[in-house]
Amino acid sequence: MTTINNSNHPLTQIEAHRVCEGEQRVYEHRATTLNCTMRFAIYLPQSSMAPVEKKLPVLFYLSGLTCSEQNVIQKAGFQRFADQHQIMVVCPDTSPRGDGVADDERYWLGQGAGFYVNATQAPWSTHYRMYDYITDELPTLIHQYFPTTGQQSITGHSMGGYGALLIGLKNPQNYQSISAFSPIVSPANSEWGQDTLPAYFGHDENDWQAVDPCALVKTSQAHRPILIDQGDADNFLSNNLKTHLFEAAVRDVTSPVSIHLRPGYDHSYYFVQSFIDTHFAFHASYLHS
Amino acid sequence: MTTINNSNHPLTQIEAHRVCEGEQRVYEHRATTLNCTMRFAIYLPQSSMAPVEKKLPVLFYLSGLTCSEQNVIQKAGFQRFADQHQIMVVCPDTSPRGDGVADDERYWLGQGAGFYVNATQAPWSTHYRMYDYITDELPTLIHQYFPTTGQQSITGHSMGGYGALLIGLKNPQNYQSISAFSPIVSPANSEWGQDTLPAYFGHDENDWQAVDPCALVKTSQAHRPILIDQGDADNFLSNNLKTHLFEAAVRDVTSPVSIHLRPGYDHSYYFVQSFIDTHFAFHASYLHS
Repeated sequence: MTTINNSNHPLTQIEAHRVCEGEQRVYEHRATTLNCTMRFAIYLPQSSMAPVEKKLPVLFYLSGLTCSEQNVIQKAGFQRFADQHQIMVVCPDTSPRGDGVADDERYWLGQGAGFYVNATQAPWSTHYRMYDYITDELPTLIHQYFPTTGQQSITGHSMGGYGALLIGLKNPQNYQSISAFSPIVSPANSEWGQDTLPAYFGHDENDWQAVDPCALVKTSQAHRPILIDQGDADNFLSNNLKTHLFEAAVRDVTSPVSIHLRPGYDHSYYFVQSFIDTHFAFHASYLHS
Repeated sequence: MTTINNSNHPLTQIEAHRVCEGEQRVYEHRATTLNCTMRFAIYLPQSSMAPVEKKLPVLFYLSGLTCSEQNVIQKAGFQRFADQHQIMVVCPDTSPRGDGVADDERYWLGQGAGFYVNATQAPWSTHYRMYDYITDELPTLIHQYFPTTGQQSITGHSMGGYGALLIGLKNPQNYQSISAFSPIVSPANSEWGQDTLPAYFGHDENDWQAVDPCALVKTSQAHRPILIDQGDADNFLSNNLKTHLFEAAVRDVTSPVSIHLRPGYDHSYYFVQSFIDTHFAFHASYLHS
């Protein structure tokens, strides 16, 4: 188990567990964009660790409301498929954290609910810059301190599925493929977004459209292949997720988009676990091509 | 999703999630042997549910200290392999529970620490009869209310690995195969057992030997095939688990016993998750033969 002992190193390792031949680690670091201390998890397939240190592509997994990096690393069973497909997996936290960071008692606003955007409104704008953190600061750290090929793809669950669509659609040059489990496809049309969008962006609906995957997918010039899985017994489907809006938005889009409605599945990690293998096979086909 | 509505039915369904085509359920029932209300989890591969209701064999998974049925159903990722090998999986709780049930502040004694034995000493003997619950009451319920072939195997983790060895070795007629992750192989030689054995059985060491897998495996007339996996970076290995004692005990045993020491793995569910596929393949080869 490699432990970083250099006190000038920006990453402090706080967990390491061998799993599926590789290692599941959690690091803590000072995030400049968010102005707070953050944790992220990284799964390293065995070949990427010493002594071989083979360069591998990276899949970012963005988690949902109320989650931290812990939920997916404990409950999704992804490590088996990350090992099989030789993909490094980075799982960030869902928002800035800490005593000095603005919060709200509603679970869909504030800590645990960063929505992967840069907030423009006080008090949120001080720390809530998850878009910059995920697209810039965190990948820069990953490529600097771990052996990567530089190739990236992105996925996520629920609010994190929204983040994966948002970030993948806005940055086609940086991600080879995009997937999502049970994503919020249009925050402006979700009950959660009715509170978070005005809080983070104010009341100009143009600003809401600028972070709306259903709008972005229509205007994106060359978006990457997209895979979406959604359970039809998901309690949040009708009031918050609304997969049908994305289906309608991509009707005239020529790039490859696959949307699967899965009968009987709910919103939990039991659902994610059931289809995680197909998402890794999907991303591997683009990351290794 | 099947819900039991008959108020005379002894099982109350409290959770159901579709996962890997089948369904992960949790039930509550009044346990006569334990004299309290208990929960257990059951994974039903799709073929065993309506309308097909194909009869399948059953694997019992016994959990470790401090756990309930929730840890393994959320963290082990076993459902994929239960579906693949067409095995029903029953995950009991680790002890009797409730306000009237004796307890202790040490996590290795009392609630969450039933050790799968029948306690003979007060105050434990009133409720702590997990051996009878696991070997008799619970399987009777399972075979009555779910479509099983009647074939059974048994596995578990840590204290539950101990339970699987104990119960499998004492009842070769009832279990086709036995496996364990990171088991306590000899409670009398573990720090935990130094407290629990006198509490549950008193001070006659003959009573301790009667529930010791290292003793039982030598005297068992025709024990079933045994598979054990143990991480060599497990914090509990040297003071509590002591796999080497079981290796020594089976040196002259002719029945098949496989013990794998896995380099770098710890005691967590990351370890269980990493080798759960091989345990299902092992049990399937005996349950379906």
